Amino acid sequence: MRARNQEHKEPRSSFRLPAGERDEGSGSRPRLDLQFLQRFLQIQKVLFPSWPSQNALMFLTLLCVALLEQLVIYQVGLIPSQYYGVLGNKDLDGFKTLTFLAVVLIVLNSMLKSFDQFTCNLLYVSWRKALTEHLHRLYFRGRVYYTLNVLRDDIDNPDQRISQDVERFCRQLSSMASKLIISPFTLIYYTYQCFQSTGWLGPVSIFGYFILGTVVNKILMGPIVAKLVQQEKLEGDFRFKHMQIRVNAEPAAFYRAGHVEHMRTDRRLQRLLQTQRELMFAELWLYIGVNTFDYLGSILSYAVIAIPIFSGVYGDLSPTELSTLVSKNAFVCIYLISCFTQLIDLSATLSDVAGYTHRIGELQETLLDMSLKSQDDEILDESEWLCALRIGCPVIYPLKEIYPGAGSTDDERIMRFLELAGLSSLVARTEGLDQQVDWNWYDVLSPGEMQRLSFARLFYLQPKYAVLDEATSALTEEVESELYRIGQQLGMTFISVGHRRSLEKFHSLVLKLYAEGRWELSRIKVD
Amino acid sequence: MRARNQEHKEPRSSFRLPAGERDEGSGSRPRLDLQFLQRFLQIQKVLFPSWPSQNALMFLTLLCVALLEQLVIYQVGLIPSQYYGVLGNKDLDGFKTLTFLAVVLIVLNSMLKSFDQFTCNLLYVSWRKALTEHLHRLYFRGRVYYTLNVLRDDIDNPDQRISQDVERFCRQLSSMASKLIISPFTLIYYTYQCFQSTGWLGPVSIFGYFILGTVVNKILMGPIVAKLVQQEKLEGDFRFKHMQIRVNAEPAAFYRAGHVEHMRTDRRLQRLLQTQRELMFAELWLYIGVNTFDYLGSILSYAVIAIPIFSGVYGDLSPTELSTLVSKNAFVCIYLISCFTQLIDLSATLSDVAGYTHRIGELQETLLDMSLKSQDDEILDESEWLCALRIGCPVIYPLKEIYPGAGSTDDERIMRFLELAGLSSLVARTEGLDQQVDWNWYDVLSPGEMQRLSFARLFYLQPKYAVLDEATSALTEEVESELYRIGQQLGMTFISVGHRRSLEKFHSLVLKLYAEGRWELSRIKVD
Repeated sequence: MRARNQEHKEPRSSFRLPAGERDEGSGSRPRLDLQFLQRFLQIQKVLFPSWPSQNALMFLTLLCVALLEQLVIYQVGLIPSQYYGVLGNKDLDGFKTLTFLAVVLIVLNSMLKSFDQFTCNLLYVSWRKALTEHLHRLYFRGRVYYTLNVLRDDIDNPDQRISQDVERFCRQLSSMASKLIISPFTLIYYTYQCFQSTGWLGPVSIFGYFILGTVVNKILMGPIVAKLVQQEKLEGDFRFKHMQIRVNAEPAAFYRAGHVEHMRTDRRLQRLLQTQRELMFAELWLYIGVNTFDYLGSILSYAVIAIPIFSGVYGDLSPTELSTLVSKNAFVCIYLISCFTQLIDLSATLSDVAGYTHRIGELQETLLDMSLKSQDDEILDESEWLCALRIGCPVIYPLKEIYPGAGSTDDERIMRFLELAGLSSLVARTEGLDQQVDWNWYDVLSPGEMQRLSFARLFYLQPKYAVLDEATSALTEEVESELYRIGQQLGMTFISVGHRRSLEKFHSLVLKLYAEGRWELSRIKVD
Repeated sequence: MRARNQEHKEPRSSFRLPAGERDEGSGSRPRLDLQFLQRFLQIQKVLFPSWPSQNALMFLTLLCVALLEQLVIYQVGLIPSQYYGVLGNKDLDGFKTLTFLAVVLIVLNSMLKSFDQFTCNLLYVSWRKALTEHLHRLYFRGRVYYTLNVLRDDIDNPDQRISQDVERFCRQLSSMASKLIISPFTLIYYTYQCFQSTGWLGPVSIFGYFILGTVVNKILMGPIVAKLVQQEKLEGDFRFKHMQIRVNAEPAAFYRAGHVEHMRTDRRLQRLLQTQRELMFAELWLYIGVNTFDYLGSILSYAVIAIPIFSGVYGDLSPTELSTLVSKNAFVCIYLISCFTQLIDLSATLSDVAGYTHRIGELQETLLDMSLKSQDDEILDESEWLCALRIGCPVIYPLKEIYPGAGSTDDERIMRFLELAGLSSLVARTEGLDQQVDWNWYDVLSPGEMQRLSFARLFYLQPKYAVLDEATSALTEEVESELYRIGQQLGMTFISVGHRRSLEKFHSLVLKLYAEGRWELSRIKVD
């Protein structure tokens, strides 16, 4: 009862950055403009695809629970004031009834509150599922994911947008949605209750107090936001430096760079710590402001009830009834302040949501645009991608996942081609073709082994033409001959890029490129 | 006053994982054993190097401020009860005096609280500085950083230990230190105050209530912790999958893997969402438990004061005095519960601190051990590392940072050797030797350009012997000849590893390695 009502006042000290300033990508505040509304509605269409959908029903449930919860919270909030009544009058029966009622109300309140949270959480999962699957469908259609990641640079970090921004968007939206819709009602109701006890004085002073606090907070926050962004950047720089040293430890040691790297890393550390110190001095004033504001608010409730009491409005009340009134008024005032504070917090959340809306909306628009284009110029040949192979990570795309029967005959072919490429030892190391390995292939394979693996893949695919760019540069001329010979026997025609004369015997034409755009095409004489 | 006292009860719903279970590296809970104590003391020696050091004085200041703060908090906590007195008696002068006193106390309290936080923050920076610099000194001595990162695998992620674990250790330690030391005093004082109003009944019921709450919380938390760990892992897997697709977008598109990758990514998403849903069902019961516990606690204060009131202990008090007593007792009881809750929260923080202590202590021990060994077998030649060059990233280690005058004559040499290696165009692209570039050299340079750059570095260093491992595999035989010729003119002797015959003319001996450990050393005939 007391105490719980102010729970929303807590988070000021863990400063929230407006989403736009946290967002390294954009650099500017997320706009709450027409485009935001369009993008937001576009996303809502994905979240609520039809009526009555599961998501819509869940959202309605959430609203009802939240409304019911407010009714119970008000009853729970009045309990302390009623205790002043029964204890002041030494009314034992009243005490017993009140305590029973209090326990019932508290349990009911806890259950409603928990169910509210629970529904929010389920809604979050459901929304996230709908939105992510929708984006996946667009992202993986044709070669959209490739075009987006490799050829275009207007949409930064599409992977993060799908995995992280969607997550945060759904979480923030599910937590704020019900509160935002209910807050006007609670605001009006508690203003009315406060007006009942204290006249206009109460609501007006509280509103004025709140405005003042917000303005002061804004002023004190000013210098902090920029410093906070700077601190986060420097913290990132410092970590990145350490990561770099770890990754480049070998060349750094080879060039005896320890001393220089020590100096450089220390310098980054000093810059970071200096910024942190500056931030702390700026924060000190904000702390004082926030703390004073929070505590003075609860005094305010006594001041606003004092005026009608001393001016004789409540002249006919007994001392016990006065205590009840004071306690009730304290609850109403504090709850009213907390309603305002909650609105401010919601506006910060809304700013976050706007940021995510723009990032997700932008991605969605681009994906839609691209997947329309991609449908025109791409006809997917199912059998073609099913047997696609890939270097390094998994040797073959998981045929078995799609055609469970296809495995065994295929395994024999793979084994044979690995043997032809001189890689039987690789299968011995992994103890079979389907075993999961816990190493990174790029660390384990030598450049020569990687090139052999490419040839094994080539033998498996058996294309008519193969374009090989420096595909044997890490192999001896003998191995090179052997691999090209097998390829020729399998009926392939090679187009090779390379620096070695030894390649010539597997080709009939040579195109030489010279400086200044000069080139020369000639037939290779067979010895 | 009301409300603020329970601020520590908030964070339950944002479940804290015990550090050990969060720690992916170790997998087990951090031990609070003798080794922990040793490591902790070892780190304390770094944080408090001497007496009176700056850190020790800051810590003392923090203790004094925290103690003073507790005194003021008690006074502030009594203000509402005094309001019941003056308002109940309609004592206007009393009201004015009390309000003045309240404002003074609140401002004092805010200042103390803020100064407490401020000192904590400064202490955190100071500790982090001391500890990080200490670790840097050990890490960068000799080639310790290389040995640790490349040759040993017993200390995982040393970079994260230095940059992140130290940060968190200092932050947690600075926030918990003063609270932990002060909590016994507050616990005893508020137990005594509660005993004064209610006899033994009050403290005993509160303590029993608290124990009960903790046990129920523990039981309800049980199934959640494992699920939470699983959820975090799956969330990581999902993000990693997206990151992989982004990085491998080109090969994936080349092999038309969109459909398979879509299936796989969706499957990871489903697994994650299913776990989230299970987690939410488990959390529902915890929410109900925590909420009921929180609200019932404040009822408890009225129940424990009711018994002496109804049994006639306070028979001679007026109704107004009774209200004052009830309000005061409510404050004391709630504060006492919050003290217990705070202790539980501190124990979770302690568990975190123990985890970081082990990780940092382990690193420190290994570094100390290695840097002792490294001093024996390494004599650093200052002039040697000063002119070290490095491929890719910055072309040369920053001579100018150390010898500001050394630049210009050196620049000419660098330009000449870049030209000899055929890389003048590179300098044109960067618009000078000292310009910062915003691209990644590994993406920009072709393999051939990287090899040319290695030769430029070689020409700059002019060693007597150069070991070249496939150093010209991406270059034409003409360029290879040219670079080797320049090297010979600069007086170098080459030891080359390679697959090309064309290399032979720059060497006088050839060592051939065959299968089964056979080898052959022969003199190369000069044509």
